[in-house]
Amino acid sequence: MEHDFHQWLKEQASSLPFVSIGIGDDAAAIMPVKFDLPDNVQANAEWVVTNDMIAEGTHFELATDQSLTQHLANIGRKSIAVSLSDIAAMGAIPMFATFSLQLPRSLNLANSISLYEGASSLANDFNVAIIGGDTNSWKGPLVLGTTLFGVRQHLKDGWKLSDAKVNDVVLVSGDFGGSLHGKHFLFEPQINLSRYLIENYSIHGATDATDSLSLDLMAIGKSSNVGFQIDLNAIPISTDVESVEPEKRLKHALYDGEDFELILTTSPTEAEKILNDEQVPSRLTKIGSIIDGPPRIIDLDGEIVEVKGYIH
Amino acid sequence: MEHDFHQWLKEQASSLPFVSIGIGDDAAAIMPVKFDLPDNVQANAEWVVTNDMIAEGTHFELATDQSLTQHLANIGRKSIAVSLSDIAAMGAIPMFATFSLQLPRSLNLANSISLYEGASSLANDFNVAIIGGDTNSWKGPLVLGTTLFGVRQHLKDGWKLSDAKVNDVVLVSGDFGGSLHGKHFLFEPQINLSRYLIENYSIHGATDATDSLSLDLMAIGKSSNVGFQIDLNAIPISTDVESVEPEKRLKHALYDGEDFELILTTSPTEAEKILNDEQVPSRLTKIGSIIDGPPRIIDLDGEIVEVKGYIH
Repeated sequence: MEHDFHQWLKEQASSLPFVSIGIGDDAAAIMPVKFDLPDNVQANAEWVVTNDMIAEGTHFELATDQSLTQHLANIGRKSIAVSLSDIAAMGAIPMFATFSLQLPRSLNLANSISLYEGASSLANDFNVAIIGGDTNSWKGPLVLGTTLFGVRQHLKDGWKLSDAKVNDVVLVSGDFGGSLHGKHFLFEPQINLSRYLIENYSIHGATDATDSLSLDLMAIGKSSNVGFQIDLNAIPISTDVESVEPEKRLKHALYDGEDFELILTTSPTEAEKILNDEQVPSRLTKIGSIIDGPPRIIDLDGEIVEVKGYIH
Repeated sequence: MEHDFHQWLKEQASSLPFVSIGIGDDAAAIMPVKFDLPDNVQANAEWVVTNDMIAEGTHFELATDQSLTQHLANIGRKSIAVSLSDIAAMGAIPMFATFSLQLPRSLNLANSISLYEGASSLANDFNVAIIGGDTNSWKGPLVLGTTLFGVRQHLKDGWKLSDAKVNDVVLVSGDFGGSLHGKHFLFEPQINLSRYLIENYSIHGATDATDSLSLDLMAIGKSSNVGFQIDLNAIPISTDVESVEPEKRLKHALYDGEDFELILTTSPTEAEKILNDEQVPSRLTKIGSIIDGPPRIIDLDGEIVEVKGYIH
């Protein structure tokens, strides 16, 4: 089966011009001079690299009443999407990826192809080439590994966990709390938003919400040694949690993992420009501001907001 | 435990000048202009990327009578070594890596550090920076994922599975058959040999022996659509298999996996120069030549040599 899958993979050669050797040799080869990049990025390129493993029982379950084919495609998609979200949180343009599988012996060739096609379909949406990987059948549960490479113009500062500044405004993309209702599979990584912002504005602190809104705010807080004053009523909450009572809705938004929205901080003047810019490709909401340390989250009444979430 | 390990990892920041953001943010960032590379490589750089997963029960066992600390360090080392061997088979200079773990809950913080230190110690030997990764505890067996990046001067041809030519001489590094006696953990990836050869000679077909000498020869044979005539008596056999009878020794050399030696083909004149060059940093042995297709291996009597090995 593994051999058949390797044969099939070799036929999925990327046609992107920067791939000089694709799947099937000892390694892949890439020619950065052939990247289709804006001149300012090409001239002063900084490479951004992220690596994620997602595993059965932690990030997804295999047993499901959905069609297995569609479910496997969603799992493959998620593996790439999680890494794309990291690339978005760095303000980079995604370029190419490796995609690896530890396959339980219960999965056959068609199942492996479903996993791969879920991954490659999302990769194609962002012109990302899958250039290689490693596939092994084994006795354990399903594991997927993705390494994703992006490029941005070299930044001296900004777009980092440690770059939030006191008085910054805190902006978030999309909405929160819908993860358990399927968003953790089918979210759209905020690549387009990120590209628009890095080309047009100056961003200080940046991350994507993976463990939970509160935990990922605190990741910025700890790295930048700052606190947050958050208007809890301003947090955009997913319509997928509308049916539950108001207090529980807020808890889903603050504490559920895997919303994969961007959390950004920037100066009040820059934030105002961004919020008034109708060209911004995705909705952004102001939810609060950065206050002097220590790292903590308080609400508008000065009460400490509990921090917790889903640590994988 | 995972949290403690993440904290520990953040303190292992790479001091290599090209790493602008190391472990601990959403992704790492790299400045290729700061690579310490020969001018000809820097001017016309091609990136080489390889990704490997190694897993408990397939590539190693956790249960052992060795000291667990040393055994885990060997497993971590192997994860990087396997990828370095791929980079060597491409003639590239290794630069940086990501290193990820799916950790069984039975392993503690000290165990995780042993895995990482085994990996980073070998990486340091080759000035390779570990710039990031992803670590999750889970209910399954131990899995390690490595993505390794190298750079070489852009090659129009050569150092590929598909570039062997009829009449080429077949050269191999080191010796074969010692894998089961521990070499599969403690082999030295042939990076120095590879760098010397790409700077001084023209190589056609190239791979590293992972599945077995016979299977990896055939990988070149199938990609290049050529056959091999091999002098079975010329194959260098590891002293680790000296105690068994002669016929069995040859079988270990031809069919055991994970020798991680280079298999190279080049023109007879180039091969003669290489074999007479006393500066070559690692022993090379001529074991045969490339013959017209179909892909097959024959011995000096024209008899077909069986092809088999260890497919992971």
